[in-house]
Amino acid sequence: MTLTQTLFEALDAVPLVDPHSHINPRWATSDTIADLLGYHYYTELAHSAGMPRSRIEEPDITPHEKVARLFEYLHHINHSVQWSWFLELSNDLFGFQAESIDTSNWQKLYDLALAKMSQPSWEDEVLRKSNVQRIFLTNDFDDPLDDFDTYRYVPCLRTDDLVFHLALPQTRERLAKATGIQVANLKDLQDAIGSLFAHFVKYQVRACAISLPPWFSPTAIAVDDASAQAAFQRLLASQSVSQSDREIVAYWVFWRLAEFCNDMHLPFDLMIGVNRKVYPEGVFQGQDLYDSRWSMIQYAELLNAFPKVKFPVSVLASVSNQELVDYAWIFPNVIANGHWWYSNTPTFIQHDLRARIDAIPRNKIIGYYSDAYKLEFILPKYKMFKRILANVLAESIVIERRLSESFAIDLGTQILRGNVDSIFFSQE
Amino acid sequence: MTLTQTLFEALDAVPLVDPHSHINPRWATSDTIADLLGYHYYTELAHSAGMPRSRIEEPDITPHEKVARLFEYLHHINHSVQWSWFLELSNDLFGFQAESIDTSNWQKLYDLALAKMSQPSWEDEVLRKSNVQRIFLTNDFDDPLDDFDTYRYVPCLRTDDLVFHLALPQTRERLAKATGIQVANLKDLQDAIGSLFAHFVKYQVRACAISLPPWFSPTAIAVDDASAQAAFQRLLASQSVSQSDREIVAYWVFWRLAEFCNDMHLPFDLMIGVNRKVYPEGVFQGQDLYDSRWSMIQYAELLNAFPKVKFPVSVLASVSNQELVDYAWIFPNVIANGHWWYSNTPTFIQHDLRARIDAIPRNKIIGYYSDAYKLEFILPKYKMFKRILANVLAESIVIERRLSESFAIDLGTQILRGNVDSIFFSQE
Amino acid sequence: MTLTQTLFEALDAVPLVDPHSHINPRWATSDTIADLLGYHYYTELAHSAGMPRSRIEEPDITPHEKVARLFEYLHHINHSVQWSWFLELSNDLFGFQAESIDTSNWQKLYDLALAKMSQPSWEDEVLRKSNVQRIFLTNDFDDPLDDFDTYRYVPCLRTDDLVFHLALPQTRERLAKATGIQVANLKDLQDAIGSLFAHFVKYQVRACAISLPPWFSPTAIAVDDASAQAAFQRLLASQSVSQSDREIVAYWVFWRLAEFCNDMHLPFDLMIGVNRKVYPEGVFQGQDLYDSRWSMIQYAELLNAFPKVKFPVSVLASVSNQELVDYAWIFPNVIANGHWWYSNTPTFIQHDLRARIDAIPRNKIIGYYSDAYKLEFILPKYKMFKRILANVLAESIVIERRLSESFAIDLGTQILRGNVDSIFFSQE
Repeated sequence: MTLTQTLFEALDAVPLVDPHSHINPRWATSDTIADLLGYHYYTELAHSAGMPRSRIEEPDITPHEKVARLFEYLHHINHSVQWSWFLELSNDLFGFQAESIDTSNWQKLYDLALAKMSQPSWEDEVLRKSNVQRIFLTNDFDDPLDDFDTYRYVPCLRTDDLVFHLALPQTRERLAKATGIQVANLKDLQDAIGSLFAHFVKYQVRACAISLPPWFSPTAIAVDDASAQAAFQRLLASQSVSQSDREIVAYWVFWRLAEFCNDMHLPFDLMIGVNRKVYPEGVFQGQDLYDSRWSMIQYAELLNAFPKVKFPVSVLASVSNQELVDYAWIFPNVIANGHWWYSNTPTFIQHDLRARIDAIPRNKIIGYYSDAYKLEFILPKYKMFKRILANVLAESIVIERRLSESFAIDLGTQILRGNVDSIFFSQE
Repeated sequence: MTLTQTLFEALDAVPLVDPHSHINPRWATSDTIADLLGYHYYTELAHSAGMPRSRIEEPDITPHEKVARLFEYLHHINHSVQWSWFLELSNDLFGFQAESIDTSNWQKLYDLALAKMSQPSWEDEVLRKSNVQRIFLTNDFDDPLDDFDTYRYVPCLRTDDLVFHLALPQTRERLAKATGIQVANLKDLQDAIGSLFAHFVKYQVRACAISLPPWFSPTAIAVDDASAQAAFQRLLASQSVSQSDREIVAYWVFWRLAEFCNDMHLPFDLMIGVNRKVYPEGVFQGQDLYDSRWSMIQYAELLNAFPKVKFPVSVLASVSNQELVDYAWIFPNVIANGHWWYSNTPTFIQHDLRARIDAIPRNKIIGYYSDAYKLEFILPKYKMFKRILANVLAESIVIERRLSESFAIDLGTQILRGNVDSIFFSQE
Repeated sequence: MTLTQTLFEALDAVPLVDPHSHINPRWATSDTIADLLGYHYYTELAHSAGMPRSRIEEPDITPHEKVARLFEYLHHINHSVQWSWFLELSNDLFGFQAESIDTSNWQKLYDLALAKMSQPSWEDEVLRKSNVQRIFLTNDFDDPLDDFDTYRYVPCLRTDDLVFHLALPQTRERLAKATGIQVANLKDLQDAIGSLFAHFVKYQVRACAISLPPWFSPTAIAVDDASAQAAFQRLLASQSVSQSDREIVAYWVFWRLAEFCNDMHLPFDLMIGVNRKVYPEGVFQGQDLYDSRWSMIQYAELLNAFPKVKFPVSVLASVSNQELVDYAWIFPNVIANGHWWYSNTPTFIQHDLRARIDAIPRNKIIGYYSDAYKLEFILPKYKMFKRILANVLAESIVIERRLSESFAIDLGTQILRGNVDSIFFSQE
């Protein structure tokens, strides 16, 4: 067994806590492989390869028909890492052993998977095979939280709507319904946000999270700031709100979130860099891209203002990784978190992970999260990461730095699991 | 034979169509090695290493003298990848077998090459040894196109002059001469551009192309836009034209080009990122550099407006590669195209190619183009690329993703050749 | 012995001249390992891992107590490349052989090192073991220079204070004291700077150096420019100086420095990209970070204006490396210099060095400098670099480009040593 294999086997035996996903705890696994192939990674790549959106998103087609249609285009991505996830989960979870999955054999897979997915034990079986104990969710602020097992599915308060979409009446209506507070001014808004935090804390929330656009440069705006109050009034009153007012309100709310995280001892996951709807004609969830011209320095004021809040930071593009490494090297409250979305491919993971392991304190590297929408994807995504982690540890730690195999395994275990425990589950 | 060697041999047997060059079809090969060493890669590097421009560009020196002078400095670059191209072509095309080429032996090479180049069959021989069937050109808009074989040398309409240099009277005179239209307003200009497209289409043009500066952010400006008309009038009238007027006219023309590409079903090659004349005292063609702070998001409006135009995109710097990968992942009309100029070195090709193969649909990766000015360079540049491609396929596809050798060869063949055919030679 | 080992052994035998350090020539080595572990790389990483600054920087604690406290946190960085430097120097300089250094055995190391450091021959011994002949310093403009051996410790005029801190009265007082000139206007200032250069030249200065923030875009401002004069008057008069005035004065002084470098035939080291005090609550020297959004194009005017001044350029982040490579490829006066600070980790060195060796003339690559504050760090830092250099030469030069081992060793020797001689010690 090679060094890398030895390390992989050891890491593969570590029980996982997945610190970020989009799992719906009430419908965590798939009903058919249409739920798997409906993952935006596949629909957007099929569309990118030439498949019209109207064929993919035609209403009222059956799952079976949807899968049949997608396979007309999926051979265009059969080399990609995204496709390798589907191949690997089909093998490991359904026992479907084939060199490729294509128009010639998908029907067999469909039936095999359907049989597996129909069993009541499927959710448990997937988790057991994936070696996963707990999974963080992405909960809307008005999610009830009382209808699932919050030990297995860890609540995480997602706050994009509060920061960016308060200009939409429906957001404010949802907020009023969730908190009982009709928000008429910033004081009300602060109370409403406080009420949400109290609700989430009651249900063992373990993180607050938000995704942020490249232009975001948060700055302190006091609760009683008159111009913020005026901007918020205009936002409540008007149909067409200026970008400037939106930004003022966004920064005001964001700062309040950081304050509540501080008060509640909650880590605040920052997922930085996404521009929404860059390609509005794209498929569902396949419309977002980015502008890589931003800098961690936009967060310097925040990081200085909240030294006790842990900020696990994800960056969208690999060109931001060195800034993340170096801000985590200097700021005690910056933690490098996973490999997000467009950087969740082997070339970038390998490069970014090596740089992190070179220079960040080992208690501040959260190796990975699945970002999965369905439980079945946790297994192949983590396997990909564990192979790369084993490889990086072999090269950087054992060969370059001449430390022992057991040292490398300890380090890898901490990166894969230990830091999730210490960062999200220890209240200081 | 190692895996990488097996893959390389298979890829090396694929007949090529080179989708971008600066070959002059009326003078495609070199007369002496002065034509090869006069390639700006060598003159600019010799100059960078200390050779005065006046020594390189002294008028009326013989080719022999030029070569003699250059070899006083070329030992400073004998380790570089650019020099490896010259070593490899000297070996493969001239049969010059030597560990190095330097002041001690260049005379022998000079004579050997001269004998080869003087043979009437030289052009055919170079193409045969290079395994190249067709080569795209870079044609000025007023190139006659009727005096060469447009099967072997595929016309490509280069449009930099139209977009960026209409303020120069000589550009407008060339346009008038080529089209018979004296451009007095934007309507005339549109007609003239239309006439150019018709001319090129008559001669089987297969692409429109342009190189673009980092600041370029194309936006729709309608044909009858009054402020564009006014800007164009000022540009026609004035000696000193404002940057703002230049930009308005540039965007107006660029949008028309995209419309004609749409109407004519022509791919539009975008080569993004170059600043011209950053070092005006540099040698001929050795004055351009760049500012890597630009984003693909500057092209979002264009990409959304022309969903049916294929945009093969080249980026100048490797830090832009992930944006290119991700825009090609999401936008059906974005194609990743080759490794351009300052990114055409092994370190960047390897990193950029791996990232593309990880995540872009396989029908949207154009592996390489030579960018050559003389046919002799096609062989060593493509060899370099094929070695790297073989290596990336071995690591990413066969080892990491555990797909078969034949799968890797099929994928490599598509990247090297198949996509050139399907993107430039199939009219939808 | 593998190819990489063969190359490493040959390179390791090359006597070094270290072209940039912060060594104090009057106190060049450490008194205890507290001087080594007080290096900001360790204090800032210990702080980042959770150690309060007040514990690290408590006044009047003994060196022994300081080390004891640090070891409560240093296990958090025992995987890092920074820690590997300490492990390696402890082994090679003190003969301390242990798999790890931690709370269980640091006391033994402390005593062993103390005994070594107390010997009068320690400075010579460290230099001999490090194979170092000469070391460049970082001298303040008012450093006397007459109380150390300027052959061994090569003076280098550091100019940050002159460019960025003339608004501080104490800077102007230091300048007056050093030059005898009470600066009342720009003419005085020019005379004072000239006086400093004369002083440094008398003591065999071999370079002028400066570190620069990302926003810096130097431009020519004439000696008799009235608006610069007015800005300088406001700066002399006022307590609160505008950022605009600061920048004008900074550019004015910077341009004068370049002129003096030109007149005195001195290389001008530019270390580009650092923002100071981004984390003001950080430990001493552990507060600086950066914004990677800058471009070499900001220096185009300077590089064009001073073609005879050699500019060894260091960049803070690896995303700037390709720009550096390409500006060094085109501009004769740009030299790629070392791997600075946050880019001085194996992942970035490897990637950046490969790209430089691909494409920059070999006489314009300065491989490395230690940046060390104490002589003991020169050995492990250079060892790390030499291992990477051997590896890159093996892969790029011997395997990829199929050149010989002896070719690779010659190239490596030039990169490691030869170019330091030719760039800093040959007066044209």
